[in-house]
Amino acid sequence: MPSSVQKINPDIQKERNNATFNTQEFTLWWVGGEQRYKEKKALEKDFLEDPELMDKIPISYLSHKELYEEGVRKATIISNKIRVMRQEGNDGIDTYTALLGGSLGSALIKEGNPLTLHYVMFVPTIMGQGTVDQQVEWLSKAWDCEIIGTYAQTEMGHGTFLRGLETRADYDPKTQEFILNSPTITAYKWWPGGLGHTANHAVVMAQLYTKGQHHGIQPFIVQLRDENTHMPMPGIDIGEIGTKLGMKSVNNGYLGFKNVRVPRMNMLMKNSQVLPDGTFVAPKSSLLTYGTMMFVRVALIRDTAMALGKASTIATRYSAVRRQSPIDPNEPEPQIMDHVTQQLKLFPQIAKAIAFKLTGDYVWTMYNNVTGELEQGNLDRLPEMHAISCCLKAICSADAAAGAETCRLACGGHGYMDASNFPTIYGMATAVCTYEGENTVMLLQTARYLVKVYETALNGGKLVPTVQYIKEAIDAKVFANFDGSLLSIVKAFQFVAANKVRIAYDRLERSKSQGHGPEKAANLTGIELTQAADLHGRAFLALSAYTEIKNICKNVSMALSKVLLDILELYLLDSCLNRIGDFLMFIDLSEKEVGDLEIRREACLARIRPNAVAIVDGFDFHDRMLDSTLGCYDGNVYEKMFEVAKMSPLNREPVNKSFDAYLKPFMKANL
Amino acid sequence: MPSSVQKINPDIQKERNNATFNTQEFTLWWVGGEQRYKEKKALEKDFLEDPELMDKIPISYLSHKELYEEGVRKATIISNKIRVMRQEGNDGIDTYTALLGGSLGSALIKEGNPLTLHYVMFVPTIMGQGTVDQQVEWLSKAWDCEIIGTYAQTEMGHGTFLRGLETRADYDPKTQEFILNSPTITAYKWWPGGLGHTANHAVVMAQLYTKGQHHGIQPFIVQLRDENTHMPMPGIDIGEIGTKLGMKSVNNGYLGFKNVRVPRMNMLMKNSQVLPDGTFVAPKSSLLTYGTMMFVRVALIRDTAMALGKASTIATRYSAVRRQSPIDPNEPEPQIMDHVTQQLKLFPQIAKAIAFKLTGDYVWTMYNNVTGELEQGNLDRLPEMHAISCCLKAICSADAAAGAETCRLACGGHGYMDASNFPTIYGMATAVCTYEGENTVMLLQTARYLVKVYETALNGGKLVPTVQYIKEAIDAKVFANFDGSLLSIVKAFQFVAANKVRIAYDRLERSKSQGHGPEKAANLTGIELTQAADLHGRAFLALSAYTEIKNICKNVSMALSKVLLDILELYLLDSCLNRIGDFLMFIDLSEKEVGDLEIRREACLARIRPNAVAIVDGFDFHDRMLDSTLGCYDGNVYEKMFEVAKMSPLNREPVNKSFDAYLKPFMKANL
Repeated sequence: MPSSVQKINPDIQKERNNATFNTQEFTLWWVGGEQRYKEKKALEKDFLEDPELMDKIPISYLSHKELYEEGVRKATIISNKIRVMRQEGNDGIDTYTALLGGSLGSALIKEGNPLTLHYVMFVPTIMGQGTVDQQVEWLSKAWDCEIIGTYAQTEMGHGTFLRGLETRADYDPKTQEFILNSPTITAYKWWPGGLGHTANHAVVMAQLYTKGQHHGIQPFIVQLRDENTHMPMPGIDIGEIGTKLGMKSVNNGYLGFKNVRVPRMNMLMKNSQVLPDGTFVAPKSSLLTYGTMMFVRVALIRDTAMALGKASTIATRYSAVRRQSPIDPNEPEPQIMDHVTQQLKLFPQIAKAIAFKLTGDYVWTMYNNVTGELEQGNLDRLPEMHAISCCLKAICSADAAAGAETCRLACGGHGYMDASNFPTIYGMATAVCTYEGENTVMLLQTARYLVKVYETALNGGKLVPTVQYIKEAIDAKVFANFDGSLLSIVKAFQFVAANKVRIAYDRLERSKSQGHGPEKAANLTGIELTQAADLHGRAFLALSAYTEIKNICKNVSMALSKVLLDILELYLLDSCLNRIGDFLMFIDLSEKEVGDLEIRREACLARIRPNAVAIVDGFDFHDRMLDSTLGCYDGNVYEKMFEVAKMSPLNREPVNKSFDAYLKPFMKANL
Repeated sequence: MPSSVQKINPDIQKERNNATFNTQEFTLWWVGGEQRYKEKKALEKDFLEDPELMDKIPISYLSHKELYEEGVRKATIISNKIRVMRQEGNDGIDTYTALLGGSLGSALIKEGNPLTLHYVMFVPTIMGQGTVDQQVEWLSKAWDCEIIGTYAQTEMGHGTFLRGLETRADYDPKTQEFILNSPTITAYKWWPGGLGHTANHAVVMAQLYTKGQHHGIQPFIVQLRDENTHMPMPGIDIGEIGTKLGMKSVNNGYLGFKNVRVPRMNMLMKNSQVLPDGTFVAPKSSLLTYGTMMFVRVALIRDTAMALGKASTIATRYSAVRRQSPIDPNEPEPQIMDHVTQQLKLFPQIAKAIAFKLTGDYVWTMYNNVTGELEQGNLDRLPEMHAISCCLKAICSADAAAGAETCRLACGGHGYMDASNFPTIYGMATAVCTYEGENTVMLLQTARYLVKVYETALNGGKLVPTVQYIKEAIDAKVFANFDGSLLSIVKAFQFVAANKVRIAYDRLERSKSQGHGPEKAANLTGIELTQAADLHGRAFLALSAYTEIKNICKNVSMALSKVLLDILELYLLDSCLNRIGDFLMFIDLSEKEVGDLEIRREACLARIRPNAVAIVDGFDFHDRMLDSTLGCYDGNVYEKMFEVAKMSPLNREPVNKSFDAYLKPFMKANL
């Protein structure tokens, strides 16, 4: 919806007039109902229209240092508003999510908020892992931002493999203190957001040693900087790690310890404890940590959907306005969205945005059920939940990053400009492939679960819901009845996934039988294992997209349900054709049958074509969230491009000083 | 080879010690012999060790304006050196290529030289399209850099579709001048490198009107800025377009004309002419322009190989130094290159770098032969050459960009840092997908040729060498003898490509028979057409990699030839498995046969593993060309990361001013 009344580009207006469904109905469904829509709009108004939170010039013109300083300025304004909302009791979890992670937060500080980790890691870790006494001591100070914290886990030498962390905390019973040290250069903490120059406290993960014994990784609250001067505390070596592909104002830092002493009660002791004499008391269960990792990965699935939503909105609107390359030589140049090759770039990204969002919501519910069962002491579905969250995180992040780049490239040279906002969207989206568990490692974790499941099935055991299909495939042996229906494609995906698991299992077993230990064998079968996990996740996505959209269609207008079914069909056909090699290995399809799938995909593209702009309008991204010359609601692309170019500091003066300094002497040297 | 004597990381040294071949032999072959190697080293020494051409701090810390100013400073130093070399007669074409486009040039000004277009477009266009008199007038001034030019073709509204350009040049016979105008906002020139604030002249492509008639696009030399003050000339609206994903110091500009008059003789008239009275004289042939486009595209193939070479060098060296995630729980953490999944990320990129380079060289020879024939008036091979250069440009640029990202992601979080240099490599590599003809448009141009060829073959006509296989496939109908040999994989690629062409042709014909005109039908078949062109290019790459490596093996040591054959096998198996869906559509392969290909690919990875570091060493990138904390020759990754982080201007002071300005007031607000 437009931010203010302005002239709308006629080409894009025509698209809106010709849509076959009501965009507002789409939006209300998409955001979750009237009430949520109102709250969303109110929050957007409060933050996006605050003049203090607007950029004077595009931040891509700033130096790294200026970018950080501007980031802190805005971050404190946002946090101040949050503090007020909290004092008034208006701070729901959705508000934090929107302002710190979501589309709204990244509209406000597009290269990342240096205070985010304070809210999403520092405070929750104290809540989750501190005793009641520790919570009393730290939480209100943290909530009120009298102290600002971060979460220091990753080190220069170790990220995904946590057990390899090197930072030590040695307990000294004489003073009842822990002594923190970074024994090597690779032991330096490296990456925590806000650590560089922003936070004055951190939860530090370190290897605990007490009474000469090692007790694994434990969390310690450490003061990093003086509360009044902000100077680093004694023994603390701290700074920022430097510029990055994206998330440029997050202030990721490094941190080294040299005999830094903290009181015993600075170890968060809800789980493990160290008694005053140095006795270690082991935790009853470590499952809660497991839960946090799943929580974050499940949340990331929805973030990937938003990234695809933004990228496809920008590219689709631009493709409605841009005219180029005649199709019919007797007619004017068409909107580039009329080129079928362009449709194949854009529309599958729209479909994935929708499928990922629905799957994210579905898995979110599943996660809540599983943690509910967990609290009852029922751990049955935990491995299943862990497995599906790992592979979905990997697949959705990889596809979202690739899809955002496809959208950028579909906008030609203009997509390459920072003002298109594609570079920032990609920088954010591709980071998800690495953080919270590197994607290949994630797939291998899922695969480990799948081969166990396969063995269970072989031995006649019962399987839980998300892997039930593996048993069915073993029993069926061949996939006989492919009829091209949507359900048949979903079933075929499962059959293919089951067979990929079979192949991984067989090669793993063969490798073991050749004398390799299970770990070596798993490494030698790494490629097959990741492929199996990939197909498992894709089969799950196919099924959840199918189930969710079929359900939704019962409760929306016929017009909207038609559109959603087009989206579903495109999603399934495109997913299948992108993996057609796997299908053909296990399912006997003729050239004609594959050709029919291709032709149906083209028919889907043609049906979606007249609704494409209206669908992305339905995602309801505020212009400031898109922050794109190419994607603005009014479609005045070229005018916006000019407007932004004119803001370049280089364009403020007709002649840059480098002319007199370098160019003129050089040009005149020969005269 | 190391820039200076320093401690070498023992893990990377061990790799070098264990290689089965001589790296120096690889390098001499790779760069083209002893003499070229010496010249390369001398040029590198002269430029890379010039202290004036080194960065004081990493340029990622600079603001956009500072980055430009630093770019101009270095560009004039480089051009001064070139001027001296030219005066001494030492300026061969290789020197220009290396300094302005190649790995050396991008090491000197890593975000792009604002003077490049002066050398690679402005000067050559005057040489190629100016009359002798015009060359006398402009060339020596241009060569001596008394004037600095650029090439202004692309407009805001039109890039790839040249005929759509809107800038007008109206001839006024009264004054014998052309009057240039930008009739709309979309008519503004947009993108030319160096146009923003650097060049004072341009070759401007504009629609010629004379005597009330339109005569297509013609080139005009236009003065943009005053030679002494650098102020824009009257009627010239000029500036830069703003920040971009990459090539950040190229100073891409915009340019609008309002009744700008230039003398008649400023139209470059080697081809078309306008006589004093306004009479238009048409050119004899427009093939020479065709030639320039092919020239650039052929050159780009080699650039894509260099991008992959750099990215794979960085990721491979890092993977030898980085240790993480145990394979065997009883052993220390392995070098991450020992993870098979990591090998599948890296080694195919190395293989592609080699295959693309060899194909680039091969096509370069082919191009020279074709232009030689052209000058004899023989146009026979021109369409074939055009077709192959278009699809190779598209495939190699897309694969190089994707491969560079795969390498980055294989380096985890550290790859995300600018100091890894991956973001810059990707920014450069992905730009090639768009410039010099957008990739989808390129594939469609190749496809147009292929369907014509197919029709010729159907009608029993003779085919030229690069498409001969299409006729063979038509005759054979089925691919009967797949035996898994390398030659068999190459032949299978051709068979698959031919069948993709058949499908595109059939659907195109069907579409026409349903009443669509040829252009509309081509649009409706766009997806099939691009797929056919893609497979055609991949079949060509497979054949040329096969032929070239088999040839090379006759002239190198047995040890090196073994390595190159491993590379060839990996390249072919990996290419085939990445397109296995297409293979299975047309060639009857069992699950076991596909599985055997997968197992052989894994065996290739294992054979390449001990030689990987030595192979990328063989590419012989100077440390400054890689400019990467992760990829330096000595392997001291973590020390370098620290060194670069310490250079951050934010790390120069322990407390940033934003603490007093924003953070402290915010934290103390509640107290």
